[in-house]
Amino acid sequence: SSFVAGQALNSEQKTQLKQLQSTALQSQLSYQLIESLTTEVGHRLMGSAGDEKAIIWAVNKMKALGFDKVWTEPVTGSYWLRGTAKAHIVAPYPHDLVVLALGGSVATAESGITANVAHFETLADLQAIPDNSLEGKIAFVSYQMTRHIDGNGYGPAVGTRVNGAVVAAQKGASALVMRSVGTDNNRIAHTGIMRYQDKVKKIPAAALSNPDADLLLNQLKRGGEVSLYLNITARTDAEVVATSANVIGEFTGSEKPDEIVALGAHLDSWDVGAGALDDGLGIGMVMAAAHHIGQLPQRPKRTIRVILFAAEEVGLLGAKQYVKDHQAELDTHVLGAEWDFGIGRIYKMTPGVGAQSLNAIRELGQYLAPLGVALSAENNGRAQSDMGALSDAGMPSINFSPDGEHYFDYHHTENDTLDKVQPEALKINTAIYTMFAYFAAQSSADFRH
Amino acid sequence: SSFVAGQALNSEQKTQLKQLQSTALQSQLSYQLIESLTTEVGHRLMGSAGDEKAIIWAVNKMKALGFDKVWTEPVTGSYWLRGTAKAHIVAPYPHDLVVLALGGSVATAESGITANVAHFETLADLQAIPDNSLEGKIAFVSYQMTRHIDGNGYGPAVGTRVNGAVVAAQKGASALVMRSVGTDNNRIAHTGIMRYQDKVKKIPAAALSNPDADLLLNQLKRGGEVSLYLNITARTDAEVVATSANVIGEFTGSEKPDEIVALGAHLDSWDVGAGALDDGLGIGMVMAAAHHIGQLPQRPKRTIRVILFAAEEVGLLGAKQYVKDHQAELDTHVLGAEWDFGIGRIYKMTPGVGAQSLNAIRELGQYLAPLGVALSAENNGRAQSDMGALSDAGMPSINFSPDGEHYFDYHHTENDTLDKVQPEALKINTAIYTMFAYFAAQSSADFRH
Ligand SMILES: [Zn+2]
Ligand SMILES: [Zn+2]
Ligand SMILES: [Zn+2]
Ligand SMILES: [Zn+2]
Repeated sequence: SSFVAGQALNSEQKTQLKQLQSTALQSQLSYQLIESLTTEVGHRLMGSAGDEKAIIWAVNKMKALGFDKVWTEPVTGSYWLRGTAKAHIVAPYPHDLVVLALGGSVATAESGITANVAHFETLADLQAIPDNSLEGKIAFVSYQMTRHIDGNGYGPAVGTRVNGAVVAAQKGASALVMRSVGTDNNRIAHTGIMRYQDKVKKIPAAALSNPDADLLLNQLKRGGEVSLYLNITARTDAEVVATSANVIGEFTGSEKPDEIVALGAHLDSWDVGAGALDDGLGIGMVMAAAHHIGQLPQRPKRTIRVILFAAEEVGLLGAKQYVKDHQAELDTHVLGAEWDFGIGRIYKMTPGVGAQSLNAIRELGQYLAPLGVALSAENNGRAQSDMGALSDAGMPSINFSPDGEHYFDYHHTENDTLDKVQPEALKINTAIYTMFAYFAAQSSADFRH
Repeated sequence: SSFVAGQALNSEQKTQLKQLQSTALQSQLSYQLIESLTTEVGHRLMGSAGDEKAIIWAVNKMKALGFDKVWTEPVTGSYWLRGTAKAHIVAPYPHDLVVLALGGSVATAESGITANVAHFETLADLQAIPDNSLEGKIAFVSYQMTRHIDGNGYGPAVGTRVNGAVVAAQKGASALVMRSVGTDNNRIAHTGIMRYQDKVKKIPAAALSNPDADLLLNQLKRGGEVSLYLNITARTDAEVVATSANVIGEFTGSEKPDEIVALGAHLDSWDVGAGALDDGLGIGMVMAAAHHIGQLPQRPKRTIRVILFAAEEVGLLGAKQYVKDHQAELDTHVLGAEWDFGIGRIYKMTPGVGAQSLNAIRELGQYLAPLGVALSAENNGRAQSDMGALSDAGMPSINFSPDGEHYFDYHHTENDTLDKVQPEALKINTAIYTMFAYFAAQSSADFRH
């Protein structure tokens, strides 16, 4: 056996863990779930028809996969309609540009905006100029995200997407245009959430594909004025309350049904692409992991709860609602993890647990090591994405780090489709989540201490 | 020196050849030309406004680059307008699809076509069914192009694009939809020329992106009927004669001005993307190669003629017109090559010359070997693309084979943009064309014998 002796699992449980590893590595279930979701539902933005279909899909799948309990919990918010986005360079050299509105953007006037471009290499450069100095101009931030295995280029790039429109409006600009937050070189733009701020004018905001940002830069480099046309018809219907739902399924624990091992992913996606990676991967992994464990002759001691969160993309609405709804029982969530990142294999796990339970985590690390998972020396892991809200509320967590080198080639684009899933990495990652969940559900460790 | 002794060039010429190699490898001219063309002109389909701008651009650039003579020769044809193309799966699971009309396609009815899909894995499978057996259906051919370094997956795939609509119409189909001829996995479709045939009904023809073809297949695999909506507004204005031009520039030979070394590329492009690779690369390479030679203190013995052909994409109209216009002097074209393929480095040259001049070609091969060019054992080389028409008319030719592994990721798509150019490979390839042209212009070899 490649498993070393440990304390959290007894020898029968270790045998079962090995069987689960083998089951998960041979199963195509997580892939099949993503295939089903992307083929039969497609994208599913909070409040859209796809969102409604996805909730029905998830409930039905959980039931078909033998979950002991399946239910939904309502999440409300607003529904943003993308409409259309068009942009072209007017002068000096006319070109049509590939552009997407950022999520939450307001529309331009119906006739669009035609204005000269004021170029900034970074959001900090835009921030540094005097207020109201960009009257009648479109601000263009050309900062380019860099590629890293852990995706750490996202942080420095995403600030422009989230806050750029507020800063540009404070400078007096009539719109913000930015280079997409993405590492690809396709004529495909990346969307994602942006924010407005009270008392700051709401201006339209859009992202250009990387090659289109290059083209705009090349025209700017020639030194003369460059003028741009932008037309966005997006809108948020403030009158209408959109309803979505967290979809939750459980395999009930045999000895400690009130102690919950929580596996998270988000059910919603942006309204471009099929949400195969973001977060179809997570949906497939956590549903398959729970199902594999549910196929054992006996339920593990603790309950395994799968939470498919609503409305992550538009501001973690589902996660916030879950924390609110489950405030009283949050301390029964003994350990949790989400999957909402990366196409490639997991290479590292970082716990965020009580110091006394680190021995148990080390034991888990030994079980996962043959699958290529290194145990981080840090104990500051926060669960990804939605589950991060539960981590913040005190839930012990594990963060699994995957090879994220190519994730941002496709993130929040039309290109987020089934063919981008790497079936072998997915199998291994599903096995890791299956083993993690089983371990946490059988272990006697108290991960809060 | 890495040059071995030869007979075609004397020692002074060999020194000059080495200097030219060094000049070309240090120059960014070919890249700058592509940057200028793609930034200032963009795409340039036969008869379009971009085509007209490209002709002016090419004439001005040739003059600025010091060509001794620059002129244009008219080429007429028809102008196809792409209009819009929209497609979506109607049932069982609605999805919008990324689709492009094939070049030359007719429109659908204004309200579009909604029909069930009849799926064929290959054009041969479609050909094998009885005539008129697809009444009321849309034929879908899902054959997927394979990736090869020499691009040899294109041949087996492109037949569906060129002839698929005729075959589908003979079977009674109301439209042809095919998987794009391309090796990428982007939500970006590939266009390219298609043909109709007299007495066969003209039906609309379109290409899906690879991920969209996958999605359609996945719905078909579920076994039920799959219905598709297709709406194309393309048209060819048969009343209007479109005028374009071959743009020709020369450095006149100092001793044998009537003997012509011909360097070709095509000036037109499809109306998607910027034509950076197809055929901006060729335009940059042959213009820069001629310019480098033109910067020498003396003109070489023979004339170096750069021909930027019109209307290659829509049926080699420029090349056919050139052969017709220059019938009387075709035998003065002593050796020719085109560049219209591949992003990567040249790894092989294949001559198509008289047997007695093979020694001279071997000498050229020795000069190019340090740049990674192997001399093919075959002597059946035909020039690429337009210049192939001159090869067919008897012009001795060389075909340079590049690494074509990634060319068909971008070929005939929105993604054919400047960022796809590999500057280092381009420099080396430009050096190879420069040295080839110089060698051919100085050599005393008669490549017809
Ligand atoms: Zn996500
Ligand atoms: Zn996301
Ligand atoms: Zn071409
Ligand atoms: Zn072409």
